[in-house]
Amino acid sequence: MTVEFICVGTEILLGSIVNTNAAYLSEKCAGLGLSCYFQTVVGDNEDRLAQVLETGMERSDIVILSGGLGPTEDDLTKEVAAKICGKELQLHQPSKKAIEKFFSDRGMEPTDNNWKQAMLPKDGIVLENPNGTAPGVIMETEKACLILLPGPPNELRPMFEESVVPYLEKLTSQVICSKTVKICGVGESKAETMVKDLIDAQENPTIATYAKTGEVHIRVTANAEDKKAAMKLIKPVVKELKNRFGNAVYSTEEECTLEKAAADLLVANDLTVTCAESCTGGLLSARLVNVPGISDVYKMGVVTYSNKAKRRLLGVKKSTLQKYGAVSVQTAEEMAKGAAGLFKADVAVAVTGIAGPDGGTEEKPVGLVYVACYVKGKAVVKEYHFAGNRDKVRESTVAAALVLLRECILEYYSAITFGK
Amino acid sequence: MTVEFICVGTEILLGSIVNTNAAYLSEKCAGLGLSCYFQTVVGDNEDRLAQVLETGMERSDIVILSGGLGPTEDDLTKEVAAKICGKELQLHQPSKKAIEKFFSDRGMEPTDNNWKQAMLPKDGIVLENPNGTAPGVIMETEKACLILLPGPPNELRPMFEESVVPYLEKLTSQVICSKTVKICGVGESKAETMVKDLIDAQENPTIATYAKTGEVHIRVTANAEDKKAAMKLIKPVVKELKNRFGNAVYSTEEECTLEKAAADLLVANDLTVTCAESCTGGLLSARLVNVPGISDVYKMGVVTYSNKAKRRLLGVKKSTLQKYGAVSVQTAEEMAKGAAGLFKADVAVAVTGIAGPDGGTEEKPVGLVYVACYVKGKAVVKEYHFAGNRDKVRESTVAAALVLLRECILEYYSAITFGK
Repeated sequence: MTVEFICVGTEILLGSIVNTNAAYLSEKCAGLGLSCYFQTVVGDNEDRLAQVLETGMERSDIVILSGGLGPTEDDLTKEVAAKICGKELQLHQPSKKAIEKFFSDRGMEPTDNNWKQAMLPKDGIVLENPNGTAPGVIMETEKACLILLPGPPNELRPMFEESVVPYLEKLTSQVICSKTVKICGVGESKAETMVKDLIDAQENPTIATYAKTGEVHIRVTANAEDKKAAMKLIKPVVKELKNRFGNAVYSTEEECTLEKAAADLLVANDLTVTCAESCTGGLLSARLVNVPGISDVYKMGVVTYSNKAKRRLLGVKKSTLQKYGAVSVQTAEEMAKGAAGLFKADVAVAVTGIAGPDGGTEEKPVGLVYVACYVKGKAVVKEYHFAGNRDKVRESTVAAALVLLRECILEYYSAITFGK
Repeated sequence: MTVEFICVGTEILLGSIVNTNAAYLSEKCAGLGLSCYFQTVVGDNEDRLAQVLETGMERSDIVILSGGLGPTEDDLTKEVAAKICGKELQLHQPSKKAIEKFFSDRGMEPTDNNWKQAMLPKDGIVLENPNGTAPGVIMETEKACLILLPGPPNELRPMFEESVVPYLEKLTSQVICSKTVKICGVGESKAETMVKDLIDAQENPTIATYAKTGEVHIRVTANAEDKKAAMKLIKPVVKELKNRFGNAVYSTEEECTLEKAAADLLVANDLTVTCAESCTGGLLSARLVNVPGISDVYKMGVVTYSNKAKRRLLGVKKSTLQKYGAVSVQTAEEMAKGAAGLFKADVAVAVTGIAGPDGGTEEKPVGLVYVACYVKGKAVVKEYHFAGNRDKVRESTVAAALVLLRECILEYYSAITFGK
């Protein structure tokens, strides 16, 4: 079954916003086993929207539109879609009530044009929007199935997950389930080689790899008559992947991030943690602090950008800086040990490197990074060479630091079994 | 003159990567005065690519394609475009040499399939690629002008700026210039109201507003027979905008960011700076440290996530935390003063707030943030209420902190005239 996406919005055509809805919808639909061959962006213009919608309905089974459901005159996705399908718009009382409630909950009054949002195509399946005033709607026609969703991601995503996914599963008369095996510390090409035989032999479930910075995600997707049967197909493949990648698998949970996996290990073992950062300038702390509940173990961290700061705040020795330089194994190690000692933390991660564009030498080129991880008396330092611009080097460094943090704790508590 | 974009790549259709090329090309072409009505994404498939390319050539004057110029069998953008235009591919010797040089510079050997990248359509205008092995190419046909660019952003962007912009300017037989007036600390709707009369009356130059987090950019675009004439049209409008927005204008330079504007003020006045962060967890430091050359003024910063850390590292009084709480005017002020004193900095910015999703109360809801800025003995604290999820609150907080930092320095050195 094929699906395509039409994102409606002048802001996307002007380049003011990046089209993250298309990426979100594509990934979700691929996970549901639907094939997507086209994405289109078009402005709030009746003729042009009608043109791309008609083309989409000719060539795909399902057309998902996002945007253009707002209350203003400019918003005309619903109007154009209804016209093409030969459906009238009529007032949908439950949606009108929901809009009233949305405003009264916020101590506000709806304006007259808000009622436009409650005008919905006859016979359409209405999708509730608890996060905004624009309901979504599904229109089934002989040619194709149209699904209209609001543009703001914080409205589109919950509506897709709560209302559209169950609908699509019913439509395909199959349940499609997937499980993602999240791997860190293994390069993309190595990971692909390690599962090539599985990918070559795949039928149901299918296996696909996705590269992220410092991570590889392997998604296993199966379709079957019900969830239980699909999970039965998925389970042995996930088990095989866990066997092959061992400790490099940090999670198989949809919501789990690399920083959450590291934070969970810290919390589970009651280890306090601190960070001492140079080239990443606070990004490592910021990513750890983004895990809700981290406050039990993360109390403080420092950005020591200058040599003086490394000496004063972390007690790095002047002689170390003079002899080996700020970007060195020795400095990284002293930064981690110093931070752990001064902030009385069980674990400390320190980062020092050359993010560029300036500051590189032949001996120490841009992209050279040292990460040190100290766990209860023992420090490990690793050297990395990252490619890309300043932002990319910093992002890769943060990912590497989280991977090393996780590895060091696992090693320290080698009794902890993996993959629960 | 109209332009549309066709981005070729299965990774985009799978949602593995977000289509930033489309956003980049759209913004650049809008800045050149070209009208864009469509963006399309299609996979590496001959029939489907031909279909969207033919549609694009029917309805737009210029079609820019990105991606699918790689060395593998899958990459077929050039092949499909040449076929549609009735052009043969032939070996382009200078491109072959460039590919040889690209590899030898890196101490590597090209593989056989790399020569595919030097096969270019007859009569095409070849665009050099100093950052990769795929040259771009322009094909002029009766229907439309096709511009083929490589997919990786670090190859596409320099090629667009160095080769495509001059070509498009010649094509339109007009020079199109633009200047962006970058404003901070003024909300989007207020900014729009303040320039509504200018937008309503616009002809040449045109005026468009773009909202960013904590910022509004107003782009003034003029076309004329040469650069001098275009700038003559732009200049009085930029002057008028500067008059209306005063100190809120932080730059009119393309490359200048809000953090760079703040950093430049610090460097120009020889002021050292430090940051003490709670809810932003290091993001403010990370953004400042992203400005090359910041090391002259930024030496160190701290993330004080727990109350204990605020007391121990910054000297916030226990009684202040007990009486007013960690998220309060008083705590923010003591954090900034403490950081400035302890780290011997002229300027200190402190941030404390509730980023959510948990931790909010009726009195202190999620999104409540205090930012304190201390400049040589005087501290200013501001209260903010930000909407959105945890990430959005943190991003808004960092922008607000940079705006306040800039404002406080400007106020301190009120002699500094603005807008140079």
